[in-house]
Amino acid sequence: MRKHSLIQQLITAFRCLPGVGPKSAQRMTFFLLQRDRPGGRHLAQSLVEAMSKVGNCRRCRTLSEKEVCAICDNPKRDSSQLCVVESPADMAAIEHGTSYRGQFFVLGGHLSPLDGVGPEEIGVELLERRLSEGQVSEVILATGATVEGQATAHYLSELVHDKGIRVSRIAQGVPLGGELEFVDSSTLDHAIGERQIMD
Amino acid sequence: MRKHSLIQQLITAFRCLPGVGPKSAQRMTFFLLQRDRPGGRHLAQSLVEAMSKVGNCRRCRTLSEKEVCAICDNPKRDSSQLCVVESPADMAAIEHGTSYRGQFFVLGGHLSPLDGVGPEEIGVELLERRLSEGQVSEVILATGATVEGQATAHYLSELVHDKGIRVSRIAQGVPLGGELEFVDSSTLDHAIGERQIMD
Repeated sequence: MRKHSLIQQLITAFRCLPGVGPKSAQRMTFFLLQRDRPGGRHLAQSLVEAMSKVGNCRRCRTLSEKEVCAICDNPKRDSSQLCVVESPADMAAIEHGTSYRGQFFVLGGHLSPLDGVGPEEIGVELLERRLSEGQVSEVILATGATVEGQATAHYLSELVHDKGIRVSRIAQGVPLGGELEFVDSSTLDHAIGERQIMD
Repeated sequence: MRKHSLIQQLITAFRCLPGVGPKSAQRMTFFLLQRDRPGGRHLAQSLVEAMSKVGNCRRCRTLSEKEVCAICDNPKRDSSQLCVVESPADMAAIEHGTSYRGQFFVLGGHLSPLDGVGPEEIGVELLERRLSEGQVSEVILATGATVEGQATAHYLSELVHDKGIRVSRIAQGVPLGGELEFVDSSTLDHAIGERQIMD
């Protein structure tokens, strides 16, 4: 069998990226080869460095090239609030999209017993140690509104509650700016059931 | 100013790819760091090799890591037919999607005087030398159906015709499987004007 050409190898290599099918992979390959070789080389260099040097923050478990990430290391952040999220992407969404300025804790997933993901895998031990330090007075559970995210939030809420620390869950309901007719029925049902009294 | 983190650098580097905006670039970065570091390293290696070793075929100008590409070098291909395309991607589309088994010639663009792209830039000299070899008996013009593609085809048709070689243009009209109501009006107008008599 003939060895694949370098062009074919690069097309195949691009397929490891999320959302990149055969057509996009070919388009990326031809684009770089025809019009942006410096960009391709720069991307290669950035990949090599990030893959080898980025690890996890030892306080909050987010992706970080330093032992302690920039947020955990920032004394101006409110260390009485701890927002628990599933992933670094969720953390970035809250950090860049909201006015929250407390600390974070990244689970790196959600409880999923069938996939062998238990409390140990989502770093519950490290979280408990963090809570024992005594600085945190409120834990905000910002796991997903999926079945697994809800189960994880429920599990963590009991654990935090037992330590006598206040625990909250991010609000769930119709998205702001959303037209009611396009909101899915389970969200709408929840929004009706959990309606808030207006003073 | 603070130096950007390796994570931020990688997100920025991904932006050089076509069709990749800030959200996709972040998703790709987090995906590789969390779940597929070997894939990321392999992509980097493939990029480095392709960027440095892939050049252009000296016969047809397509992207190739060898001096003469696999198609030009294949004695089983019909060398009496020469299909002229704008890009390696167009060549790949014809090669993989049709039963055409002749040779190719890649212009690497289309005539565009305002952008400084004249006959020299699209390799007309090399094409003329190829036609002088005497093997080609038909040139199939498969440039795009855009204004520039049509103008380029028109220019080349006169050049080929002057050499006494048959020249054809790929058929233009409604796409197969397309519902007429969704076909744009200029295509439809062309399809009516260029209707074919059925025997």
